[in-house]
Amino acid sequence: VEIMLDDRWSIGGKPHGGYLLREAVAPLLTEAHPHPLAVSAHYLRSPDPGPAAVELDTLREGRRVSQHRSRLLQGGQTCVETLVTTGPLDPDAEPFWSSSEPPVMPPLEDCPRSLAEPVPGFRIGHLDFVDLRPDPGTVRFISGHQTTPGRVSAWVQMNEGGSSVLDLLLLADALPPVTFDLGLPGWVPTVELTVLIRGVPAPGWLVAEQRARLLQDGWLDEECDIWDSRGRLVCQARQLAGYRVPS
Amino acid sequence: VEIMLDDRWSIGGKPHGGYLLREAVAPLLTEAHPHPLAVSAHYLRSPDPGPAAVELDTLREGRRVSQHRSRLLQGGQTCVETLVTTGPLDPDAEPFWSSSEPPVMPPLEDCPRSLAEPVPGFRIGHLDFVDLRPDPGTVRFISGHQTTPGRVSAWVQMNEGGSSVLDLLLLADALPPVTFDLGLPGWVPTVELTVLIRGVPAPGWLVAEQRARLLQDGWLDEECDIWDSRGRLVCQARQLAGYRVPS
Repeated sequence: VEIMLDDRWSIGGKPHGGYLLREAVAPLLTEAHPHPLAVSAHYLRSPDPGPAAVELDTLREGRRVSQHRSRLLQGGQTCVETLVTTGPLDPDAEPFWSSSEPPVMPPLEDCPRSLAEPVPGFRIGHLDFVDLRPDPGTVRFISGHQTTPGRVSAWVQMNEGGSSVLDLLLLADALPPVTFDLGLPGWVPTVELTVLIRGVPAPGWLVAEQRARLLQDGWLDEECDIWDSRGRLVCQARQLAGYRVPS
Repeated sequence: VEIMLDDRWSIGGKPHGGYLLREAVAPLLTEAHPHPLAVSAHYLRSPDPGPAAVELDTLREGRRVSQHRSRLLQGGQTCVETLVTTGPLDPDAEPFWSSSEPPVMPPLEDCPRSLAEPVPGFRIGHLDFVDLRPDPGTVRFISGHQTTPGRVSAWVQMNEGGSSVLDLLLLADALPPVTFDLGLPGWVPTVELTVLIRGVPAPGWLVAEQRARLLQDGWLDEECDIWDSRGRLVCQARQLAGYRVPS
């Protein structure tokens, strides 16, 4: 499958990791298995905006789920290698059991939208498409103080309002890295990102919560859970990212 | 690589998922990149004990990390497809920042070892190799009551005492499913399992904590974190498992 990586989705000239994931998974979906249930991506190298290709390989086609490999390439080099289990999710499913609660959020009007160009010349492309409104109390670089180190929560949805199951793949990687809040500058490249899709989001604003547990030995985990407007957990994501603490 | 799946590692006649993962990852490790950092497995079908093969493909060999595909096959059919990022972990690394705390555990002598044959004729093979001692207060089927639905904690180590980085891949899938504690019987087959290895375990007992967030629409997540005897987070795992609630 030939694809075109849109340069409006770039950060510092490189396409957003969640955007790449959405591109890599979209061609796999079928009428019988229209939803990704589990998506595991390993990032090998960052492509440039422009033409690229997605190579697909169905590993097993079952009645309940199918399992696939997806490879995003550019210039003959693998950029993102992904395993995907797809199947049907019931949009009206309710929890049989749950221990998950969305974080308590301030009203939307108290949460300013994150800017796609926070400082002149530095563009965070996905924020032109994603309406992200962090709880200022969880983000030190917005509020100047914070009470929740390693935790950021936000209202979030696609610009157009509706957020599809596929959009969750990029929303799971749309919040600012927790390193910013730890006062650590610089780039936090994703090495591995796994997204579990647990439900079809109801219309309206989503709430996302990102947490980290450990920054050690050059590596950081970041977890992102997303709940829909009915308070149902629809997405659980976790990534391993490289981060070298400046000496 | 030809391998032999040991039937002593079976549950209900089928090899343990974490054992399969350790077999699939072991042949990838090299002197330069001796540790799996991120392992993402999708389970297609369950092999039988006996001869099997692991097919390896190195996707990218870098200075800091390498990225690989590993495929466990039996009779020409793919059973487990895995992506693995490997690299070197510093055994003496200390957290630069952490929000992770191991659960408070009762003393070891108050936590009876889980039996490999809890009822005659039903074998949980890995419990012959893994010394698992759950906190009785977190496991209803041990204590008859429980205060922590959806959460089980345990002392755990390999029988021989030392637990290697590779052993963490199976220890991350060694605790009883939380469905047992919800009073739900039956099989909880893993569809996807991602393990992040965050450190080299120090000698001695590990502490593991397993949690679930949501059982809905036939799917359950289970998360397992493991800390070493020095209280350092060494493993973060999460799986998606199928579970049909009996009607």
